[in-house]
Amino acid sequence: MQPLHLDDLAVGQRFTSRPSELNAQAIKAFAGQFDPQPFHLDEAAAEASLFGGLAASGWHTAALTMRLLVESVPLAGGVIGAGVELAWPRPTRPGDVLTVESEVIEIVPSRSRPDRGTIKLRSETRNQEGLPVQVMTARLVVPRRLPAGEEGGSVR
Amino acid sequence: MQPLHLDDLAVGQRFTSRPSELNAQAIKAFAGQFDPQPFHLDEAAAEASLFGGLAASGWHTAALTMRLLVESVPLAGGVIGAGVELAWPRPTRPGDVLTVESEVIEIVPSRSRPDRGTIKLRSETRNQEGLPVQVMTARLVVPRRLPAGEEGGSVR
Repeated sequence: MQPLHLDDLAVGQRFTSRPSELNAQAIKAFAGQFDPQPFHLDEAAAEASLFGGLAASGWHTAALTMRLLVESVPLAGGVIGAGVELAWPRPTRPGDVLTVESEVIEIVPSRSRPDRGTIKLRSETRNQEGLPVQVMTARLVVPRRLPAGEEGGSVR
Repeated sequence: MQPLHLDDLAVGQRFTSRPSELNAQAIKAFAGQFDPQPFHLDEAAAEASLFGGLAASGWHTAALTMRLLVESVPLAGGVIGAGVELAWPRPTRPGDVLTVESEVIEIVPSRSRPDRGTIKLRSETRNQEGLPVQVMTARLVVPRRLPAGEEGGSVR
């Protein structure tokens, strides 16, 4: 994939990730380290909870989404977020196969820094039934394509 | 810590986490799994990047923040987020010692479900210099304290 600069992007442009499956072992390992709550760690406790069964930490879903974004959205300079909004409309379950579908919804060249701009990228993380488990809108920093001979000023 | 129900919370109530240090090895391990970009994986590549040195993935900072939240905010039913807004005003660096300071900024009883409500919790994750590396506002689901004999209807 050719790295994309701000100049190469257009509102409505879309990117689709590969599918990625997660299992109960990975859910429990992530939760043990970062979100040690019974409904992310133990099937029986999860059954009796609001989730009605083992569910991945939302931060696990978010981290996996990032992995799939980095692989599927080839931005020059990398995928660098300044801020995000996240919602988790339903839990991610053991055996779910996630795919991330992203769309450029806004492009804003920087007024003060001619070498870059920001975009808003809306990314929907869906399970194997096509149902969203996470909806994220991220503001990303993207370098502009520089005239020949000025590469030293690029973001990377 | 006594678990807190919606009825026990007040706007302005604050919670402070223990400090937690993260090192270069943990930064690279997380990035290798979830955010494999050069500025999170390699010191030399990071020096030449926008970050000017090795920086933790924002999702690593978010996941560590969740760990500290779970330990410091004793909500009945657990810390269950419906949605969040996140910003990363500056990078988390190797050797940073993070603390999370949280404040209840809104309390909304549910109209349709008398057994619960939502709160907005604003959590600032600060480094050892007191500077914010993450600012998050989360909408959390919190059970109400039920009259004696109705415990079966609680969230957990």
